[in-house]
Amino acid sequence: MSGTAQIGVTGLAVMGRNLARNMARSGLTVAVHNRTPGRTTALVEEFGHEGAFVAARDAEEFVAALERPRRLVVMVKAGEPTDAVIARFAPLLEPGDIVVDGGNAHFADTRRRERELRERGIHFVGAGISGGEEGALHGPSIMPGGSAASYEALGPLLERIAARAPDGTPCVSHVGPDGAGHFVKMVHNGIEYADMQLIGEAYHLLREVAGFAPARIAETFRGWNAGRLDSYLIEITAEVLAHRDAATGEPFVDVVADRAEQKGTGRWTAQIALDLGVPVPGIAEAVFARSLSGHAALREASEGLPGPDVKPMEEAEAVRFAEAVEQALYASKIVSYTQGFQQIRAGSETYGWDVDPGAVASLWRAGCIVRAAFLDRIRAAYEARPGLVGLLADAGFAAEIGEAQDDWRAVVAAAARRGVPAPGFAAALAYYDALRAPRLPAALTQAQRDFFGAHTYRRTDREGSFHTLWGGDRSEVAG
Amino acid sequence: MSGTAQIGVTGLAVMGRNLARNMARSGLTVAVHNRTPGRTTALVEEFGHEGAFVAARDAEEFVAALERPRRLVVMVKAGEPTDAVIARFAPLLEPGDIVVDGGNAHFADTRRRERELRERGIHFVGAGISGGEEGALHGPSIMPGGSAASYEALGPLLERIAARAPDGTPCVSHVGPDGAGHFVKMVHNGIEYADMQLIGEAYHLLREVAGFAPARIAETFRGWNAGRLDSYLIEITAEVLAHRDAATGEPFVDVVADRAEQKGTGRWTAQIALDLGVPVPGIAEAVFARSLSGHAALREASEGLPGPDVKPMEEAEAVRFAEAVEQALYASKIVSYTQGFQQIRAGSETYGWDVDPGAVASLWRAGCIVRAAFLDRIRAAYEARPGLVGLLADAGFAAEIGEAQDDWRAVVAAAARRGVPAPGFAAALAYYDALRAPRLPAALTQAQRDFFGAHTYRRTDREGSFHTLWGGDRSEVAG
Repeated sequence: MSGTAQIGVTGLAVMGRNLARNMARSGLTVAVHNRTPGRTTALVEEFGHEGAFVAARDAEEFVAALERPRRLVVMVKAGEPTDAVIARFAPLLEPGDIVVDGGNAHFADTRRRERELRERGIHFVGAGISGGEEGALHGPSIMPGGSAASYEALGPLLERIAARAPDGTPCVSHVGPDGAGHFVKMVHNGIEYADMQLIGEAYHLLREVAGFAPARIAETFRGWNAGRLDSYLIEITAEVLAHRDAATGEPFVDVVADRAEQKGTGRWTAQIALDLGVPVPGIAEAVFARSLSGHAALREASEGLPGPDVKPMEEAEAVRFAEAVEQALYASKIVSYTQGFQQIRAGSETYGWDVDPGAVASLWRAGCIVRAAFLDRIRAAYEARPGLVGLLADAGFAAEIGEAQDDWRAVVAAAARRGVPAPGFAAALAYYDALRAPRLPAALTQAQRDFFGAHTYRRTDREGSFHTLWGGDRSEVAG
Repeated sequence: MSGTAQIGVTGLAVMGRNLARNMARSGLTVAVHNRTPGRTTALVEEFGHEGAFVAARDAEEFVAALERPRRLVVMVKAGEPTDAVIARFAPLLEPGDIVVDGGNAHFADTRRRERELRERGIHFVGAGISGGEEGALHGPSIMPGGSAASYEALGPLLERIAARAPDGTPCVSHVGPDGAGHFVKMVHNGIEYADMQLIGEAYHLLREVAGFAPARIAETFRGWNAGRLDSYLIEITAEVLAHRDAATGEPFVDVVADRAEQKGTGRWTAQIALDLGVPVPGIAEAVFARSLSGHAALREASEGLPGPDVKPMEEAEAVRFAEAVEQALYASKIVSYTQGFQQIRAGSETYGWDVDPGAVASLWRAGCIVRAAFLDRIRAAYEARPGLVGLLADAGFAAEIGEAQDDWRAVVAAAARRGVPAPGFAAALAYYDALRAPRLPAALTQAQRDFFGAHTYRRTDREGSFHTLWGGDRSEVAG
């Protein structure tokens, strides 16, 4: 017997609840279930008027409430809770049913779960969902992996609840097989870390080098948000910086403890990039900056360390500097997205996912934390040249970096000279300069490796692998 | 029945062979064994005159050749080969016997193996061994983990074959339980990556900014090696840069392909630092720089990207710049070791190893790749203040950084302005400036997290966790 609900959500914490409400509000009949039934009751009592909910008291009732093929969306904590839910539901399902994991799972777990359920004929869709509570309710960006067949049954429903890009396209599409969706979501979060770090550095430089007060920096960010940096994170930065603490009357940002926390997806992104051999220094520096901020003892022990003697900037110089910071932020952002998209490319090649980078840019255009006008440019760049080897190979982005580079260099130099940490800006510039360098000191590194470990080297002028007899007559032999 | 060999080596590739020769040459009777017996025969034929070898044809003969408690040193590839050797030998051993893994095992594998063998009463010692082929033969730096009891039986033998610091101390001591030895060896390798990257950047800057030819840079490094930078890596850099390619007559470094390879321990170091929440940007940048150098397609696609207009330096300016590069290199090196020692501290705390950082610095003073006069200073700093919160809290290092910082800042600024990538120098300086910053933009980051994800924040003026109702009236509630 088949139920009437087109889709179901199990796990009704805030993300699951809001996603279920979003579904109901877009006209779907939604079965809802939670391990402890109180949340199910509360959801229907409070929001039942928003649409057609079917409250299920237990797993059997939940599964029975779904029309076939069943579409179950699991919204529980990543890790063991997800495995527990799958173990509970899988025996109740039939071939062709679809289990969607909407949590922040590690893509390797998603690959394992997809394989295990596939053996039972069940589709498992690891779907990255970005946009937080508000996104879940009003339209998130959704990155579903899994089989193409599952997307046929699932996609039309997801398209109803997803955010819409300015051109009306829903921010959801089939990313690729098995773990592709969660992998792309992970890189999204890594890019989000990098974006936030760059914004933090821009703020810090405007504060410490230009001498702007938070309210003025809020104005500056508001101005940037009207231009090419138009994005959610720039917008909320202006909101945060304009906010005053009611208790003290101080700028809010000054009463917040300067210790940034993290939940782990940025760390995963950097770790997996290391495994894949993809340089993502922007993401790694962002993760390190957060952890450094929490090392209270080390920071305290370093308080007296000497810094440079610095004169404050005059107004005209400060205004000019703020413009340069915008250039540096934009150029660093291009580099940061270059790194993220290179990681997606590497993941796609390693796991055979055939991910379309333009489609990824397209579905990040709205709903998610990194949403930005800029992403439509990335989409267009990949659409124009599907084989594009990195964003920097796009003539448009290259031209913008060319215009930005003098200011970018000046900002990185000013940060170094004036003792304001700007690891993200500096790492982005070094990455850019390394990529365009005709020769890198990697030649010296490899020669050193040959010296102390006989690791051999290649030559610029002929094929083969060579070793120099460093401990002997220093002649060269085949390696 | 007990044999006569005090120690045995199984796995006679170059590292194992040289270690066995080192043992025999220092007066020990050494049983030698290899899975395929040809290497055993070859070793005895070629080097039998160096000391007392007992050639064993199979595992049983090898074990029978050892006096009790048996001391077996396994010198095979990390990973499955190590497990295979342990599986082959363990059934032949008795409680109290000691198995030493002298390969580059991941410390988590070492922890697992130690636990498994401990259950059978066998001591398992994961021993990091650094110094390459030459070190293995003439005296490596040895970092043994495992039980304190195992070190009592093993230490006196290892002290005979280890390198000796300038003050005569053998470069071996008990690092700590289970995986401590391999962990410390891993961080050693991470620091080695960072050292090599910094040296590469110094070379690159002298070449591209100061306009020095390789032979002149070799001279510069030779000069540095006579000062506070006195170290193996600086010494061999001078050797490599002074070397001319016989085939072309060109400087050797110019005929080597600029693609640096890696075997994985640097990557592990960065990945585990991310897990432990320890910022090690210097090591991560070094790993990324190596992988970037190998991304041929991306580099090729980036060749035409715009760089700055740069005038070459005049001679006097170049000479002054080279001095500044020495300061930048030294200051960055202090930072890099600070990060490595913080990682050792974090590992020690997480796994309950009670590692003595001063003892680690002591055993890196000779034999290993990072050996340097500098390490005796680190040893002394930790000896003077065992609870030292990072090297930067040492007055001596802080004073040196204080003297170096103007030049360090100038070099990082020059690299940025002149388009020469110096990610290691820049990351080290940013780390330093972040540590000493009274306020970090992490406050903004955490406020943003509260804005889009209700992740809460702490305040500077009172205890507790708070959330601002950003979507509402922006009042503050307990979080």
